Amino acid sequence: MDDLTLAQRLADAAGAAIRPWFRRPFLVEMKEDFSPVTAADRDAEAAIRRLLDEYRPEDGVIGEEYGDDRADAERVWVLDPIDGTRAFVAGRPLFGTLIALMEGGQPVLGVIDQCIIGDRWLAGPDHPTTLNGQRVHARRCPDLADARIGTTSPQAFGADDFVQFEHVRRAAADTLYGGDCHNYGLVAAGHLDAVVESGLKLHDWAALAPIITGAGGVIMDWHGQPLSQGHDDGGRVIAAGDAELAATIAGLLTG
Amino acid sequence: MDDLTLAQRLADAAGAAIRPWFRRPFLVEMKEDFSPVTAADRDAEAAIRRLLDEYRPEDGVIGEEYGDDRADAERVWVLDPIDGTRAFVAGRPLFGTLIALMEGGQPVLGVIDQCIIGDRWLAGPDHPTTLNGQRVHARRCPDLADARIGTTSPQAFGADDFVQFEHVRRAAADTLYGGDCHNYGLVAAGHLDAVVESGLKLHDWAALAPIITGAGGVIMDWHGQPLSQGHDDGGRVIAAGDAELAATIAGLLTG
Repeated sequence: MDDLTLAQRLADAAGAAIRPWFRRPFLVEMKEDFSPVTAADRDAEAAIRRLLDEYRPEDGVIGEEYGDDRADAERVWVLDPIDGTRAFVAGRPLFGTLIALMEGGQPVLGVIDQCIIGDRWLAGPDHPTTLNGQRVHARRCPDLADARIGTTSPQAFGADDFVQFEHVRRAAADTLYGGDCHNYGLVAAGHLDAVVESGLKLHDWAALAPIITGAGGVIMDWHGQPLSQGHDDGGRVIAAGDAELAATIAGLLTG
Repeated sequence: MDDLTLAQRLADAAGAAIRPWFRRPFLVEMKEDFSPVTAADRDAEAAIRRLLDEYRPEDGVIGEEYGDDRADAERVWVLDPIDGTRAFVAGRPLFGTLIALMEGGQPVLGVIDQCIIGDRWLAGPDHPTTLNGQRVHARRCPDLADARIGTTSPQAFGADDFVQFEHVRRAAADTLYGGDCHNYGLVAAGHLDAVVESGLKLHDWAALAPIITGAGGVIMDWHGQPLSQGHDDGGRVIAAGDAELAATIAGLLTG
């Protein structure tokens, strides 16, 4: 089974593990970083790991809930079984399962899967970004004054980053809140112009990068540098459909 | 055709008018209040009004896009064809069609319909709140420290109201952004504990009131007073699953 096919099997397995929990009673535990986790997060990651053990026993795995296995392998799968657990807990179908394949520390394949709505973005080597099998393209929007941007929560920024974000928000045409990983899919599909966030961990952004770039967009840190596994700018991320817009946003965030 | 059946026909017609536009190219116009409007908003309201003209020619109609007809009638239908046009424009399936029937200035029937996901909340006389035909109940959560609250956007508050909202947000367990009318449905279904917003107009809240109260929750202004057509507290709304929680929130908002 090739990597793209396997990645979709992994997303199928995660969705099958998550759907029975959606809008059903479950316990919400708070992790040390005060982010919530549920049995659905754990079941979904376990389901993905079972398939990886079977089909890619030599590849590494880095998962949000169950940690690292062979994280120094040349090929490493990076998993966030439910990105947007807060939305999931509230019965809002805008969380997503994130699956990335890293090669030599760079993400080369990504999946964003929303298993309730049925939105699946997929990108990989020789596979430009698709949404449910249809090729999608980020849109050109060079001017921030025309741009519709998204960000999940003002509280997801630290205090200093929030001040910088507000410069961008005030200069943009409009800002949409909430959405988690789904917003990045909307950038790839040409419906949103940019997402600006900080505090993202590897498992949050690894799957997003191929999907944004495979749709003609750009994804980078707030200093305009590429995201990479070893590099950490506080998890500060700009994703945009238009490179000129991304550069303008980066200038406002760090100016 | 009884009112509940008609209300569902109206929602069906709105959804049929909206779905062809979702994630398709369309022009976004900005109205005088800087809120966006699209052909989908207008088509959906026109579709509802055609059915009301046919089945309830003597009832009044107040709609967000096409204004008032016989607004002083004893029975008045209040329509917001797309609540959450910003989300709709961004391809996010969390907007909703809101349909209310007012009798003597009080909403007695409400529909929240999300036509992409297929979430439909319905409440009316002798019809406690249902979500897709299943009876739902708001949940008990007396303590704000345990409460998960929702609000669409920090910018939807005026500056003074935002300061007050922040007292509530900091005291709550967690806050989810985005969502528009869908958040109120999640309160009715027992997945969110409260929604706090301001600036809501009659067409924004009329359909929500029967859905919240028909699920055992409470909806009121920030001073704890009932919402009504003649009364305007700046469109300030608290909806909560638990009356004690609502009272605590009202105290913080006006204290």
